[in-house]
Order: sequence, then structure tokens, then C-alpha cells
Amino acid sequence: MVTLSVLTLNCWGIPTPLACKFRKERIEEIGCELGKGDYDIVMLQEVWLKSDYQVLCSKMLKTMPYSHYFYSGMMGSGVCVFSKGPIRETFLHRFHLNGYAHKIHHGDWFGGKGVGLCKIQYQGLNINVYSTHIHAEYDRDRDEYLAHRVAQAFEISQFIKHTSESGDLVILGGDLNLEPVDLGYKLIKSNAKLHDAWLERKLFSPDECNPNGNTNEIPSNSFSSPASLLKYPEGKRIDYILYRTGPGYQANCEECRVTLGKILEKPYNYSDHEAVNAVLCVTPNPPETEVQKKEGLGVLDLLLNDALAVVDKGLKKSHALRGFFTATFLICLFVLYLASEVNLPFGLNILAMTCRLILVLTCAYAVWTRMVLSRVEENGLLETKADLLNLLQTSEYLKRQN
Amino acid sequence: MVTLSVLTLNCWGIPTPLACKFRKERIEEIGCELGKGDYDIVMLQEVWLKSDYQVLCSKMLKTMPYSHYFYSGMMGSGVCVFSKGPIRETFLHRFHLNGYAHKIHHGDWFGGKGVGLCKIQYQGLNINVYSTHIHAEYDRDRDEYLAHRVAQAFEISQFIKHTSESGDLVILGGDLNLEPVDLGYKLIKSNAKLHDAWLERKLFSPDECNPNGNTNEIPSNSFSSPASLLKYPEGKRIDYILYRTGPGYQANCEECRVTLGKILEKPYNYSDHEAVNAVLCVTPNPPETEVQKKEGLGVLDLLLNDALAVVDKGLKKSHALRGFFTATFLICLFVLYLASEVNLPFGLNILAMTCRLILVLTCAYAVWTRMVLSRVEENGLLETKADLLNLLQTSEYLKRQN
Repeated sequence: MVTLSVLTLNCWGIPTPLACKFRKERIEEIGCELGKGDYDIVMLQEVWLKSDYQVLCSKMLKTMPYSHYFYSGMMGSGVCVFSKGPIRETFLHRFHLNGYAHKIHHGDWFGGKGVGLCKIQYQGLNINVYSTHIHAEYDRDRDEYLAHRVAQAFEISQFIKHTSESGDLVILGGDLNLEPVDLGYKLIKSNAKLHDAWLERKLFSPDECNPNGNTNEIPSNSFSSPASLLKYPEGKRIDYILYRTGPGYQANCEECRVTLGKILEKPYNYSDHEAVNAVLCVTPNPPETEVQKKEGLGVLDLLLNDALAVVDKGLKKSHALRGFFTATFLICLFVLYLASEVNLPFGLNILAMTCRLILVLTCAYAVWTRMVLSRVEENGLLETKADLLNLLQTSEYLKRQN
Repeated sequence: MVTLSVLTLNCWGIPTPLACKFRKERIEEIGCELGKGDYDIVMLQEVWLKSDYQVLCSKMLKTMPYSHYFYSGMMGSGVCVFSKGPIRETFLHRFHLNGYAHKIHHGDWFGGKGVGLCKIQYQGLNINVYSTHIHAEYDRDRDEYLAHRVAQAFEISQFIKHTSESGDLVILGGDLNLEPVDLGYKLIKSNAKLHDAWLERKLFSPDECNPNGNTNEIPSNSFSSPASLLKYPEGKRIDYILYRTGPGYQANCEECRVTLGKILEKPYNYSDHEAVNAVLCVTPNPPETEVQKKEGLGVLDLLLNDALAVVDKGLKKSHALRGFFTATFLICLFVLYLASEVNLPFGLNILAMTCRLILVLTCAYAVWTRMVLSRVEENGLLETKADLLNLLQTSEYLKRQN
């Protein structure tokens, strides 16, 4: 029997001092805490700076000597994995879709998000550790990224399914930016056949302040904003440890808790997220029975159809967005033409020049987005749709077989 | 025993009439020829237009009713798969690196290239069919894309390795844009443990004109340019069918030939590439022995180290490219400042305006490339390097174990 303590934490390592407070101090504290050696495998997100990753490596070197950072996109993926056991192989799958470049204030597009795989050998087990960070939600009532987020969730589930065939134990940890009622969360669990450590835990630790295991925007977190506390008085659960065993093993979740809250003797928390820690107990076992497999199939079909509807809506939106950028280009061009006729007195000429400059740049950006980025989006959605349809057809076939 | 006839063809479906001749006619002819039903699995590349894919689907519907197009990037991946047996699952892995957006005349960046997986069930076998199209070489003596191309080859090998654990038969077909002496080709073969159908073929068909199985720029192809024939008098072999079996099966390549040359009663070829057709014979067999595995390890180490050196050079080049774009930005800005002072007579003002416009756009593009795209490149290279290093460390460990 092997017992593993696994932890996931979104470190909130955004390198903008105004938006992200005490980053440097918090990264140091996270490194010190994790370096104590209480955990066997740690999955971190939002480690955006390579220098922060280096700090974490140096603090955790003695107890967790193996680590991997997933480089990707303009900023890096932000995702890294630390382990007591050697990391034998690594592979990153970057999402086809990841928000919009023109939403600079949201910034997800620039992160190059994806799902990273570390194949870890530890205590006689071949463990496939996946860590990921899904695109943020921003506005739950009007989620303009819904299609992208559902597509990312589906991609994660497909990537895990196709790359985990030989693993003894599969662990997915990360900030999914999905609540337990969300389609994406259900899709990952169902298609990749994973269990949620929080729901499966045997030991119910008596945390009266946070009985639902919420991990973000909880009242006791010093960084939770009053606005979000109004919307989520108890916070929300969006960070997860999900797991499954390969044939020949079974795993129980002995304990799962929300941890790394307030830093000792400091007035602030480790991050704006809480960490999730699960203790998994892995034992040899006969392979999964046929009945269990069939049960999962019907539920998955419904989820795949829901995802298909979301992706179809996303395709319509993508089409509309193209129209918006075409219009932006034409309007800016027209105003530019009008502006070229205007001759202002000497002092105001610099103003006219600046306006023209902004118009030219807006034109260029509109063309780039219309011609390149929106087509990349459309193709990403089309690929997701095709993959979903293939899965549904296979499911139909399997139903006819049984 | 199962016998499979597999074909790969780069269709040269670039939608620019001047650069790509008789596209429409050739796509029709390819569809007619493949629709005859001589092949069980067909992998096509450079099908850039969705309408061309639709033409192929309609022509091949009766004999190869199952197909999948891999949507990706601005233009699509160009890669699609047709099959007599049902395609159960599909998944696309898009390359981290794929050339440069500022090399518009090369265009690879806009294609969103990757390696696509179709899990096909056919004649009792679970077949993992991979199709891909690696970034073109353009200049063999001074290959500015070498790091990207080696990284793509490595990614293909990793993707196949990690996603093919349960397949009975693995087939990779495509335009690798790599010659048999190239590092990338060796890396794919060695790391994904694949056999080259052309080299393993039992039946040596007596084609005196093309004894080396060359597939591109061969003298008999009507689209081969005189310039490239001077460089490659016999053409080059860059399209491949590679294969491997899962535990419990063994495969022999009964026949491998270069086909789909000149179109009957037409003065031109099906494409500027020839197709490769392999006949594979799959039979049950005991699993691979331990000795074979060890043999492969030493060769792979050398290749991984070579790839590491190429990626390191690529990182240096990426750094230099950043400097180039910073300089471009500063110079354009300075010229723009000088130009704003110039007042030309009325007739020449439109010329000055145009120059200013070009300068502004160049500035904007230089900033975008410097700040976003070159960082995406650096991170793609860093991820490849980290994956290579992890593999090398694992290999070291395995050596110590034995």
C-alpha cells in the first residue's frame, strides 16, 4: 500500500505590483512552507515569472528535488510541478483556444495555457501527474469565454484519456476556474473517468468556516474583494485534485482539506486562492468491471451534447466578432480619410497626429484580428466540434453493440 | 492475419492560382483515384480549402465513408484522414513552434500545423493513425527553421509515444519535409520506435527511374522546377509511412511504392509530391524482447543530444531576432520623427503620407513581434529543451539500473 500526499495551489504570481500584492514575499513563504516536505507531489499555477519559479526551486530543493516548469505562450503557462520522486517524462499540450488577444485587460490569451503531463516514478508506482489552469470566467452571468472554457475542459479530458493508458495512477490538479455544477467540470470527470478527491474523502475534517471546501474568494482570505464576497458570501470551489487508477490498482482518498490560508505572523494569505491537499491511498485491485463502464456512458453523452451546443454558440459568436472587426476597420478608415483633410492651427497639430496614429494602429489591429486571430478561433472551435461528434458517434456504436 | 493498404499524399492544395497550378482539377482527380477503393487508410496533407476537403469527401464517400479534417490555425492544418473503418476518436496536437508570422511568403506560421490522431477500428484491429506535415525546409544549406523543425519532429515522437500505449498498430503518414539523413527523421523513428515502410518493404518493385523512392522534385513530375532539379537531379524522399505494432502483434511491410504520378490523359501530375503506398501485413506475435529495447536506447541518447544542440542554437537565434525587431522599431520611429518635419509640395504629399503609414505599421508590427511572437517562440524552444533534458535524465537512470 502506498500513501501519497498531493497539493495544488494557484500562487497568484502576476508580476504587476498594483494588481497583485506582496507577490515576492508570498512566493518566498510558499516555497518555505512547501519545502518542509509534507507533500509528495505539488502542482502550482500562476507562477508567471521564471525568477519566482527559481525561488520556489531553491526553497524546495532539499525535500522535493524534482520539478518541471511548462514553458508556453508569451508569458509561460504559469504551471509547474514539484515532486519527491523523479520526473521521467514531460509533455505539454497547449489549448487550441485561450481567449482573445484584444482583451488585454484579461490577459489569458498571452499566457499560452495548456495541460502539462509529468510522468513520475514514485514508491513503485508510475504516476501520470497533470496540471492545468483553465481560462478565467470573469463574468458568470454573461460568460463571453464559455465556448473556450468548455473546449479547454474537453481538451484536458481527451489529453488525459489518450496519454494515461499505461499509468498506475492518474492525478489532475489545478485551478479549473469551474464550479462543481459547471459543464466543463462534469466533462473532465466523466470523459477522463476521474474522481474528485474532495467528494471522495473519508475523513471529514471539522472546518465549520468552510464546509464546502471553497478555494477562492472565501471570507477568511485577506485578498478576497468586498464585491466578490457580496456575490459569493462563502467563496467558490474551483481548485481541484481529481484522480483515477490504472488497471490493477485502486485508490481511496483518506483525507482532503483546504489549506495554506493565512501566513503565520503576517496579515495576509499565501495567495488569493487556498490550496487543496489530498491524501491518496493506493492498493492493488482487480480491474474495473464492465457494469461501471456502461453506467458512465449515458451521462457522458448528455455532457458531450451540451458541450456541442456551447461550441455551436461559440462559432456564431466568432462569426459576429469578425463582422465587428470588419466594421471597426471600415469606420476607422473612413474617419482617417476625413481626418486627413483637416488642417488645424499649429498647436493642435500634434493632437491631430496622435488621433491619426491611433486610427492607423486600430485599423492594423482590426485587420490582423479579422484575418488571423478570429480564424484561429473558428478553427479551434471546429476541431473541438469534430472531436465531440466523433466521440458521440462512437458512443452510438457502442450502444448498438451492447 | 490482416492486410492493410495505406497511402499518404501531399495534395499541394494551395489556394493561389499563380503559385499552385490546376488545383481544382487535381483535387477532383485525386478524389476520383482514391475513391476507387484500393486503399484502406489514406492520409492527406495540404488540403487547405474546406471546399477541397468537401470535394474529396464526396468523391470518396462510397469506398471510404469515414474521414476527419484537422481544423487549426488561420488556414486549417491542411491534414485530413480517410478510412474504410470507422474513426472512433480524434485529437489534434498543435506544434508549439511553426515558423515566423513575418515570413508571410513562406506562410507556414499561418497554417497551424500539428500532428493529428485518428483512432480507427478496422478488421479487428485498434489502429492509431497519425498524420502530420512538418514546416518546410526552403533552404537546406542555411535552414533558418532548423530548430523549429527539429522541435516539431520531437513533438511528433513524444505525442505518438504517449498516446499509442493501447494501439494494436501505429501508423504515421505524412510530408515530414525531412530527408532520411536528417536528425528530425531519425528522432521520430528512434523515440517513437517506428519502422520506415520503404526500408522494410519485402517486394522491391522494379522502378528504375526512381530506385530510392523519392517523393518530391523528381524529374518525372511535371511541377518539378528546373532550379530544384539542378539541386536534386533525382528528387528527394520526404514523404513517409512509418509504423509499429503494439504488444501482441507484429507487422511486415509486404510492399511499398511511390505512386499517383502523372494523371492519365493529362499533361500534369496529381501533385508536386508523389504519394507513398505501403501494404502492411499484421499478425499476432509475442511482445518485444528486452534486448531490442536496450539497443534503441544508446542511439536515441545521441539523437536527443543533437536535438538539444539545435534547440540551444535556436534560442540564441530567437534572442538575436528580438534585437533585430527592437532595432527596427527604433529606426522606424526615428525616421517617422524626421519625416513629420518634412513639408512637400502638394502633389508629393500623398507619397509622404504613404511612407508615414508604412513606417507606423512597421513600428506596430515590430512591437507585436518583439513583445508577443518572439516570446512565444522562446517559450516553445524552452519547453522542447526541458522535455529533451527530462528524457536524457531518464535514459541515464535506466542505464544505471541495468
